[in-house]
Amino acid sequence: MADEKPNCKVVLANNIAKSLLEEVHAGLQKIDRKPLLVGFLASADPAAKVYADWTGKTCEENGFQFELRTLDREDLEDAILVANTDPSVDGIIVYYPIFSSRQDQYIQQLVSLQKDVEGLSHRYIFNMYQNIRFLDPEEKTKKSVLPCTPLAVIKILEYLRIYNTILPYGNRLYGRTVTVINRSEVVGRPLAALLANDGACVYSVDIGDVQQFHRGEGLRKRRHEVVEKPGWTLENCLPLSDVVISGVPGEKYKVPVELLREGAVCINFSSERNFDSGKVKEKASIYVPAIGKVTIVVLLRNLLVSHCAEQDG
Amino acid sequence: MADEKPNCKVVLANNIAKSLLEEVHAGLQKIDRKPLLVGFLASADPAAKVYADWTGKTCEENGFQFELRTLDREDLEDAILVANTDPSVDGIIVYYPIFSSRQDQYIQQLVSLQKDVEGLSHRYIFNMYQNIRFLDPEEKTKKSVLPCTPLAVIKILEYLRIYNTILPYGNRLYGRTVTVINRSEVVGRPLAALLANDGACVYSVDIGDVQQFHRGEGLRKRRHEVVEKPGWTLENCLPLSDVVISGVPGEKYKVPVELLREGAVCINFSSERNFDSGKVKEKASIYVPAIGKVTIVVLLRNLLVSHCAEQDG
Repeated sequence: MADEKPNCKVVLANNIAKSLLEEVHAGLQKIDRKPLLVGFLASADPAAKVYADWTGKTCEENGFQFELRTLDREDLEDAILVANTDPSVDGIIVYYPIFSSRQDQYIQQLVSLQKDVEGLSHRYIFNMYQNIRFLDPEEKTKKSVLPCTPLAVIKILEYLRIYNTILPYGNRLYGRTVTVINRSEVVGRPLAALLANDGACVYSVDIGDVQQFHRGEGLRKRRHEVVEKPGWTLENCLPLSDVVISGVPGEKYKVPVELLREGAVCINFSSERNFDSGKVKEKASIYVPAIGKVTIVVLLRNLLVSHCAEQDG
Repeated sequence: MADEKPNCKVVLANNIAKSLLEEVHAGLQKIDRKPLLVGFLASADPAAKVYADWTGKTCEENGFQFELRTLDREDLEDAILVANTDPSVDGIIVYYPIFSSRQDQYIQQLVSLQKDVEGLSHRYIFNMYQNIRFLDPEEKTKKSVLPCTPLAVIKILEYLRIYNTILPYGNRLYGRTVTVINRSEVVGRPLAALLANDGACVYSVDIGDVQQFHRGEGLRKRRHEVVEKPGWTLENCLPLSDVVISGVPGEKYKVPVELLREGAVCINFSSERNFDSGKVKEKASIYVPAIGKVTIVVLLRNLLVSHCAEQDG
């Protein structure tokens, strides 16, 4: 009588990306010219070049223009300022690492708000943490841009119906418990904040500690607060979590799958496989092994929005 | 900064019933005559009369015919047999209690399978527990009828998007933990079985004990199994549960809301309020205070299906 195989649904980023691309293509129909993304490559890291080429390919396949500007890192600041004021440029992407992390952050803040399709400007990041969803909170016409990788995870959770559309916008993760493994400034921490702002109870796990991001009982708070969970580890978080999202760099790390709640939804955003794919299928209801293809579509989506805002503004 | 009010969405049965009624009305368009439901009233319980009148009203408001046959209980058996073979009768409903519980069960089994719109025939109940979804498992043309109240709860959970349509049909509650309070043969136990057959981990709680209904790791089993949870009480079940469904008769019983998981979905199927409505809104993301109006639409839906099967067969 019993089936032999576990019932885990593996969802590939490609399929999720396709449904988002349809939206993007529909948007492109309505505009006069192909939006132009300019990439600045001043990084010595070969992975940066790979990512740049991949961006270019995806842009061209999907009706966007891409122009890669390879240059010495000393010329980068001026080149960004020129692109900022060039009306033919719709979006700017800079490939890191270039200098030190601190100086790279300085560079990133040079990109004008209107052309920052990665959503890394301080104003955007501030709005995201503060749960301010529009640049013009009164009129609500200009959405504040969200950083691409965390937004890609959200789009995936929407696709997987983890966001419950019966609940009001802004509260659609109410009742969900999510563990996010890794608390980097680039993805892990903003992601935990975004999910908690949407109503989830989020455990943000890093090497040293566990923090809970949450809007309080009855979601009474307008934005999330962060509480330390002293003594907590994955052993406390994973058995409670409906959704587990992991992005630990390096080949060695594996999520302890035996701690997962039966039927958990598991998403990997690391470039390595944080879940042993055989073991995770024994326990998870849904498993998303990688998210890169969604991230790049989210970038195109931001580029389209940025182009349209420019036309209107 | 903080809002004062908790963010609980109260969903009324009426709204859920409306969306199901649209389906029913669309089905009525396609047939030649109004389906006829015959009700047999031989019960001395005034509540039976109230329910009968309410059935009649709902039938007539929604394009069905209803005929109430009030009779002595000694004449009931023959009357059911006559209705069974009368081609103008599409569905039969008998209002209980009449005799002893045991004899009432005997009466219920007299109603022909084709006209049993309440889904109470042994064959239907057997199929439900065994997770057999069709009367003809090979051809899959005739759906096995599900009992109205448990089915109403399922329709509510579908409406509330607790069933995740990204998962394959039959597994759409995979990853959900549900507590069902009350294990009556009429609603509580079949409901626990139905939810577990659809992939949920269900804690079925009664005065004496807690049982877990579940299809095992990776939902490998084709149908649910039942495991005793010795020593368990609501204190163990409620903090684990995404969904809490309560149907305890009597005015006194209240679910201990302080044990609920933050953001739980709470559904009351008792005719009394098992949840203190003020307190539950502090903790729940969604609260459904009553389900009666959905149950009756489910009955109409079964009646329509029964009429159409007759026309085809």
